[in-house]
Amino acid sequence: MKTSKFYISTLREAPSEAVIASHKLMLRAGITRKLGNGLYTYLPLGVRSLYKLENIIREEWNGTAEALEFKPTVIVPGDIWKESGRWETMGPQMLKAKNRGEQDMVVSPTAEEAFTAIVRDGLDSYKQLPVNLYQINTKYRDEIRPRYGVMRGREFIMADGYTMNADDESLDESYKLYEKAYFRIFKRLGLKIIPVRADSGAMGGSGSEEFMVESPIGDDTLIICPNEKCGYAANVEKAECAADESVNKNGEKPAKTDLAYEMVETPNVFSIEDMEKFFDESPKMFIKALIYRVINSSLDMTGATGADKWKRVSDPAGDYYPVSYACVLIRADLDVNEAKLAATLKASEVVLAEDEEVKEWAGAGHGFVGPMTSKCPLIVDWSVIKNNEAQMHDAIAGSGKDGYHVKHVEPLRDFVPYINADVRTAKEGDKCACCGSTFYTRKGNELGHIFKLGHKYTKSMHVTFLGQNGKPTEPTMGCYGIGVDRTLASIIETNCDDKGIIWPMSVAPFQVCIVPINYKGTMKEVADKIYDELTKAGIEVLLDDRNERPGVKFADMELIGIPLRITVGDKNLPNVEFKPRSAAEAELVPAENAAQKAIEYVKAELAKLSAE
Amino acid sequence: MKTSKFYISTLREAPSEAVIASHKLMLRAGITRKLGNGLYTYLPLGVRSLYKLENIIREEWNGTAEALEFKPTVIVPGDIWKESGRWETMGPQMLKAKNRGEQDMVVSPTAEEAFTAIVRDGLDSYKQLPVNLYQINTKYRDEIRPRYGVMRGREFIMADGYTMNADDESLDESYKLYEKAYFRIFKRLGLKIIPVRADSGAMGGSGSEEFMVESPIGDDTLIICPNEKCGYAANVEKAECAADESVNKNGEKPAKTDLAYEMVETPNVFSIEDMEKFFDESPKMFIKALIYRVINSSLDMTGATGADKWKRVSDPAGDYYPVSYACVLIRADLDVNEAKLAATLKASEVVLAEDEEVKEWAGAGHGFVGPMTSKCPLIVDWSVIKNNEAQMHDAIAGSGKDGYHVKHVEPLRDFVPYINADVRTAKEGDKCACCGSTFYTRKGNELGHIFKLGHKYTKSMHVTFLGQNGKPTEPTMGCYGIGVDRTLASIIETNCDDKGIIWPMSVAPFQVCIVPINYKGTMKEVADKIYDELTKAGIEVLLDDRNERPGVKFADMELIGIPLRITVGDKNLPNVEFKPRSAAEAELVPAENAAQKAIEYVKAELAKLSAE
Repeated sequence: MKTSKFYISTLREAPSEAVIASHKLMLRAGITRKLGNGLYTYLPLGVRSLYKLENIIREEWNGTAEALEFKPTVIVPGDIWKESGRWETMGPQMLKAKNRGEQDMVVSPTAEEAFTAIVRDGLDSYKQLPVNLYQINTKYRDEIRPRYGVMRGREFIMADGYTMNADDESLDESYKLYEKAYFRIFKRLGLKIIPVRADSGAMGGSGSEEFMVESPIGDDTLIICPNEKCGYAANVEKAECAADESVNKNGEKPAKTDLAYEMVETPNVFSIEDMEKFFDESPKMFIKALIYRVINSSLDMTGATGADKWKRVSDPAGDYYPVSYACVLIRADLDVNEAKLAATLKASEVVLAEDEEVKEWAGAGHGFVGPMTSKCPLIVDWSVIKNNEAQMHDAIAGSGKDGYHVKHVEPLRDFVPYINADVRTAKEGDKCACCGSTFYTRKGNELGHIFKLGHKYTKSMHVTFLGQNGKPTEPTMGCYGIGVDRTLASIIETNCDDKGIIWPMSVAPFQVCIVPINYKGTMKEVADKIYDELTKAGIEVLLDDRNERPGVKFADMELIGIPLRITVGDKNLPNVEFKPRSAAEAELVPAENAAQKAIEYVKAELAKLSAE
Repeated sequence: MKTSKFYISTLREAPSEAVIASHKLMLRAGITRKLGNGLYTYLPLGVRSLYKLENIIREEWNGTAEALEFKPTVIVPGDIWKESGRWETMGPQMLKAKNRGEQDMVVSPTAEEAFTAIVRDGLDSYKQLPVNLYQINTKYRDEIRPRYGVMRGREFIMADGYTMNADDESLDESYKLYEKAYFRIFKRLGLKIIPVRADSGAMGGSGSEEFMVESPIGDDTLIICPNEKCGYAANVEKAECAADESVNKNGEKPAKTDLAYEMVETPNVFSIEDMEKFFDESPKMFIKALIYRVINSSLDMTGATGADKWKRVSDPAGDYYPVSYACVLIRADLDVNEAKLAATLKASEVVLAEDEEVKEWAGAGHGFVGPMTSKCPLIVDWSVIKNNEAQMHDAIAGSGKDGYHVKHVEPLRDFVPYINADVRTAKEGDKCACCGSTFYTRKGNELGHIFKLGHKYTKSMHVTFLGQNGKPTEPTMGCYGIGVDRTLASIIETNCDDKGIIWPMSVAPFQVCIVPINYKGTMKEVADKIYDELTKAGIEVLLDDRNERPGVKFADMELIGIPLRITVGDKNLPNVEFKPRSAAEAELVPAENAAQKAIEYVKAELAKLSAE
C-alpha cells in the first residue's frame, strides 16, 4: 500500500478533551475519529489493527476454547430482557427504543438474553450440550460520562462467548478452556495481564475471573502479591490477606487479662486518634465497632439479637429481610470491606448507619458503640477472633454509653460472634495469605472477564432439556467477555513514547514502512524494489510516496507506530537505514539485503508474541 | 470439523410463516434463527457463509474498487441527520432513541451522513481527494412488514461504500471502479445479475445503476431486452422503448387528414372500450388525455396555460410550485408512466386529478378531456408527437365538453405540446429502443445499487475543500451499496432443490462433507484418513461422526447443501461414493484417490466462479 492511496490523517496536537495517551494517540494518528459523545469511528488505519485483534480472539476462541461463532442481532426485542428481569435492573445504561409497532427494543449492552433465547429454541436433549457460541459484535451502553476515547465509549465492540452446559462439571471444562484461551490471546497481543478473582457484581452467579492490565486510569484497585510463584492478585473488593498480630504501642503482644472489663469516663473522645491520645496506646489495641444498615439480606437470622424487630419477606427466590442491622467489630487500625461484609450477610448492599439508627441499635452514639451492649448481631472480623481464638487481648472498646469506653476487654470471654468472618479491607503493606509476601496495589483496567452464571438465565427464561435420566433439567451457563476497543487502546497505552505508538507486530496496521527521502530516481527504484520483495513475501508494507519533507514523513510514521522503518536516502545508498520503531538508533544495511532482513525481523517479532 | 463439535440444528419442516425457498431453507438448515419480528440470528453454519460472502465483497472493494474499509458507529447522533435534512424525510423507517442526556440518537439505516461528517472533519485540500471508504456493518430499518426472512428484515448487514470526489470526472472514475467490482463480486457468487438503470428515488442525485436478480418476490418490475449483445434492462419506472406506429383497426398507417376536427355526440361513451365500440376503431387511433395534479414542480412554467393561477414558492434550493396541473396526451392503448412524468416535470410526485380538479382544468369530466381545450399545459408523449413530427393522424380525442368527442384531430395542426417527452410505460411486447428486440418483463430483487449523489450531502452539511485554484469548493459524492443478507438469501433462492440448498463453492459453509455409514472400525479409519488429507490441503471439511441412521445424515448434509459428499460404507470399500450435491448420481472411486479427487473438484468449482 502506498500512502498516496491510503487515508493518512495525522494531527500535530490532540484535541484538549483527550487526556490519556491512547486517546490522544488514536486521534492524532488517525486511528479513530469522534462522531459523537462516546462514539468513535475507526478510520482505515484503525480498522486494520482492530481486525487483527478480532482475528486473534477468533482464532483462540475457535481453537483453544472450542467455540463457534454466531451472530445475534444488535437490536433485540425488549421482551427477552423482561423475561430475564434485567429490563428493570439494567437501568439507564440500556438504550431503548420503540419500533413503529410500539414494541420495546433494546440496543444490546450484552447478550446473555439473546444467547439464552436462541439456544432455548432448538434445545431438546442432553446430547446437544454443551453449546458454546460467541460473537464479536457491536454493543451499546449509555455511560453517564463516556471518556478516554474508546477506552470507555458508549458504543463498543465486545467479544462475548456463552456456554450452556448440562452440569457443573461440564461448565468447569468450558470455563477452563476459555481461561486458557484468554491467556493465549493476551500473550499474542503483548499485554501483561493480571488475572484476578473478582466480585461478579451485577452479572450474578459465582466463580469468576477478571483479566486486568495495570493502568493509572483503571476503575479497580488491585491487591497484588509480588511473589511471581504465588501470583495472588485480587480486586480490593475481594482480596484476602494474612492475619497480622495485635501489638501494643511498644510492639509487644498483649497478654490475656484476668481483670474484668471496666468503664472509663472518656470526655471529648470520639475518634480513634482521640483514643490514641487519651489511652496512650496503639489503635491495634482498640476494637472498632460499627453499626451497619443491611439491605436485602437473605440470611436466616431467627433468634439473633434484634432479629425479631425486622420484617422478613417471603419470596420464591428465597426469603429476605429488606432492612436489618449488624454491629461489625474490627481492629481499629483496619477498615471494613463493605463488599465482603455484604457477601457475608448475603445482602445486596450494606450502608453505615445514620446517627439515629446507631443510637437505636447501639444505645449510644457513633464512637461509643460497644461489643457487649449491641442490640443487633455481632459480625466479628478475623482480626478480633479467628478459628475460635481471640486475636486481641486486654483491649479497649466502646461501652454502649456516650462518654465512656471500657478497658480490659477479652474477646470470647466478654462477647461472642454471631458470625466470625473476614471482612477486612486488604491494603498495600498487608501480607499475602498464601505466601506471606508484602502486597502492593495498582489501579487496574478490566479487559476481559469470565463468569460462571449458573442457572440465573436458564431459570428466569425457562430453559430445560431432557437429561440422561429422561427428566427435564435446567442447564447451567457461563459467559466470557473481552472488550475489544478497550484492549486495543490498552495496547497503545502500554506501547508508546513521546513520538507516538509502538505497535506490537501482531496488531500493527502495517508491519514495515519504507520511506524514500525523495520518491524519485534511484531512491524510487530502490524503494520500489524493496516494496515488491516484501509484498511478495506477504509482509504488509506502507510505502510513503508522498511529496513531503523527510521530517514530516518520519514524524507521521513514528506517530502511526509501524514497527520497522526502512529509509532510502541518496546519502546512504547503496545502504539503507533499518530502524525498528522500538530502537533508539538506525542501522545501515545494504539495500539488497534489506528486504530479507526485514522479513526476518517481522518473523522474529511475531515469534516473540507466539502463544506456543 | 466434526458434526459432534459443531452446532447442527436442522428442522424437518419450516415454520409456516416462511413462504419462500430461501427463508424456509435458512430456518430448516440452521443457518438463521428468528429472534424477533424481522430480526434473525446467524447460527454458526450461517456465519461461515456470511463471512465468505463479506470477504468476497471486501477483496473486490479493496482491490478492484480501490476502497479502504472504515467503521463508523451503528448508533449515530441525530444531529447529523438533522444537518442533512433526512431526520424528517426518512420517516418512520428510522429507529430513533433518546440517550440519557435526552439527545436524539439514530440506529443507522444508511451512512451518507456519518461518512460526510467523518470526512468533513479532516478535509482541507484537493490533495486529499478522492476519499473512498466503505464499511460492512449493521443497519436497521423499521420496515412496516418485514418478511421473507433476511430477504427483508429490519436489522440487516449492508456493505456500503462512499466516495468524496473533487469533481465530476473523478466521481465518474470512482463510479466505474465500483461498477467493475460489482460485476466481479456477483460473478464470484455465481449470481446472474441484471444491471439496470434505476430511478434513484429518495437517495437523490442522478446517475445510478441497480444490480438485480430475477425473483418472483421482487419489488421491482424489470423491462428486459432478450438480445444479449444489447443487454438493455431497466426498471419499469424508467424504461424506454422504441416508438411503434399508430395503425388503424385494419393495421394500416392512417393518412394525414385535411378535414377540420369535428364534434361528435357520444352519449354513454366514457372508457376506451366504449370508444372502440362506438367508433369501431382501434385504440391506437385515439388520443387519451389525462389531467394530473403535480406536486412540488421546480420547472419554471411562467407563461404556460394556467400557470398564473399557481402559487410559486421561493426557496434557496430552487423555487417551486407546491401544486400545479398538467394535461398528458398519450396514445390510448398505452399507459402513462408516472415516475417518468414526475421526472419530466421536476416534481416530487404526480397524482391523477380528482373529478372536481378534472372539471376545473379540462372543462369537462374524465373521459372527455380534450387536447384543444385544456386549461393547463399539454405534456405530449412521443407516441403522439416526436421530434416535431406527428406520430398519429386523423385521430379521435376528447372534446372538452361532456358527452362529445372530436374526430379528424391532427397533432401539431390542432394543438402543440408545452413539453414533448417520453412518458409512456414500457411493457412486455414493446420493442427495445436500442436493438428492436421484443422486451420481456420479470420481477427483480435489488441486491446492489450504485449512485452518483452529487452535492446533496456536501451542500446541506457544508463540506468544502481548497481547490487547485485556491478557492473553497464543494466536493461531489457517490455511494455504493450491497445488501449482504439479501444477497446470501438470493444465492440460496437460486441454488436449491426439493432436498435443500446447493451452495456455490465460493460461499459454501464447508466445501466437502464425509459421511461414514457407521463411524466405527474400517469405515472410521478410512473417513478419518480422507478427513486428514483434505484438512491438510486447506479444504474445509465436515465429518459427520454422529451416531445416526445414514438416511438422517444424508438428509442433513443435503439440506445444509455442502457441495461435495464422500460416503464411506462397508459395502463399497475399498471404494467410496463421490457425490457432488448438484449431481443426480454418485460415482464410486477408490478410497485412496478420494481426497485428491475432492481437492481437484473444489478447485475446479472455485475456478468456474473466478472473476478473472
